[in-house]
Amino acid sequence: MSPVRRPLRAPRRVESGASPSRLRRDREKAATRALILEAAREMFTREGYAETSMRRLADTIGYTATTIYHHFKDKDALLNELCLNDFRALGEALRHMEQVPDPVARIRAMGVNYVRFALEHPQQFRFMFMVERPVPGPNDVKIDPAEDGYVFLKTAVTEAISAGLLKEGYQDVESVSQILWGMVHGIATIHLSKGHDEHPWIELRDPMATARLACDTLMQGMLRNP
Amino acid sequence: MSPVRRPLRAPRRVESGASPSRLRRDREKAATRALILEAAREMFTREGYAETSMRRLADTIGYTATTIYHHFKDKDALLNELCLNDFRALGEALRHMEQVPDPVARIRAMGVNYVRFALEHPQQFRFMFMVERPVPGPNDVKIDPAEDGYVFLKTAVTEAISAGLLKEGYQDVESVSQILWGMVHGIATIHLSKGHDEHPWIELRDPMATARLACDTLMQGMLRNP
Repeated sequence: MSPVRRPLRAPRRVESGASPSRLRRDREKAATRALILEAAREMFTREGYAETSMRRLADTIGYTATTIYHHFKDKDALLNELCLNDFRALGEALRHMEQVPDPVARIRAMGVNYVRFALEHPQQFRFMFMVERPVPGPNDVKIDPAEDGYVFLKTAVTEAISAGLLKEGYQDVESVSQILWGMVHGIATIHLSKGHDEHPWIELRDPMATARLACDTLMQGMLRNP
Repeated sequence: MSPVRRPLRAPRRVESGASPSRLRRDREKAATRALILEAAREMFTREGYAETSMRRLADTIGYTATTIYHHFKDKDALLNELCLNDFRALGEALRHMEQVPDPVARIRAMGVNYVRFALEHPQQFRFMFMVERPVPGPNDVKIDPAEDGYVFLKTAVTEAISAGLLKEGYQDVESVSQILWGMVHGIATIHLSKGHDEHPWIELRDPMATARLACDTLMQGMLRNP
């Protein structure tokens, strides 16, 4: 199973000596938790942060609010865990490219895989970037830079700069990374937004092909010896 | 006054022989209409399409629902007029670049101005591209291609291709336009999204500077003789 398709939260690890009934209970608990998270993402994405409540969420999936509170202390805890899981899944999808030794080939592969992630997980992608929500509080668990897609991209860009592969105007890691990110983020967002349905004269091209050509074009523009 | 900052709906034109009281009434009507539209955009953007209702909108701005219905037959009519106005305003901001005769310089200018529009009108930009909403019905007034930003971009790209300025791989107007649009759309969207607040290691660069460098990079990659 590809890592981006794994369940969004792994079942809690249980001691090897756990009883069968304990094991079953743990599995049920993990399944309930996953169900709540999926329903919450859908509600947050469709109706926005303000309109999502633990009670309405409970109604949607046929649980009592008490059951939901048993798993998550409040709406923000739920939201935070969702974001964390989604950003980790995206990071995981990009981390796979680390096995490509050439930083330029790696940058291209990451760009194309970013768009693939968005197309394969439209709900998550919309939720991560297209829903307004409060930032996590100081006590919330936050994503670790070591799991973050942007950090993987920056590593590849840093390597390309250090190896002298990029032209003079492309020595700022942040600015180069933000151009590369912006490019594939824009392609993904345009394809997930429905705004262009109102503009029938826009013939959207295949987003994967567009992403490939776009990444090649940027690298052509940035490389000292394309 | 720059065209993108004009009120989103011009007051209705009145005959020159109109009485002063008629003139005043028309002005008041236009002002009310503009107020309703602004409040509706805010509510649609913040709370989503499903949660916005004519009644709640009326409550927010202190009118009766009847007053709102007097101006707009239903929620969808309101939504449609908002979208139309916003896409027209964006088109207008880009149409200005038509005075730049060189298509490549025009493409660059359009790209940078797209990001400027998003930064100056964050509410509109979010509403246009980041809110899920139903597509307009068959009887709704729709934006005219002659007012649409994408069409202006396509015209410039077509000119660049016809003049033989772009490399062999860049002869498809749609694909080239979608790369250019995607680039600046991504930069704008990243800057308007708050997702990166959760990733304090991302040092966002000035979006206008990023947009300029990004457009230059793409043109460097696409041009036969950069």
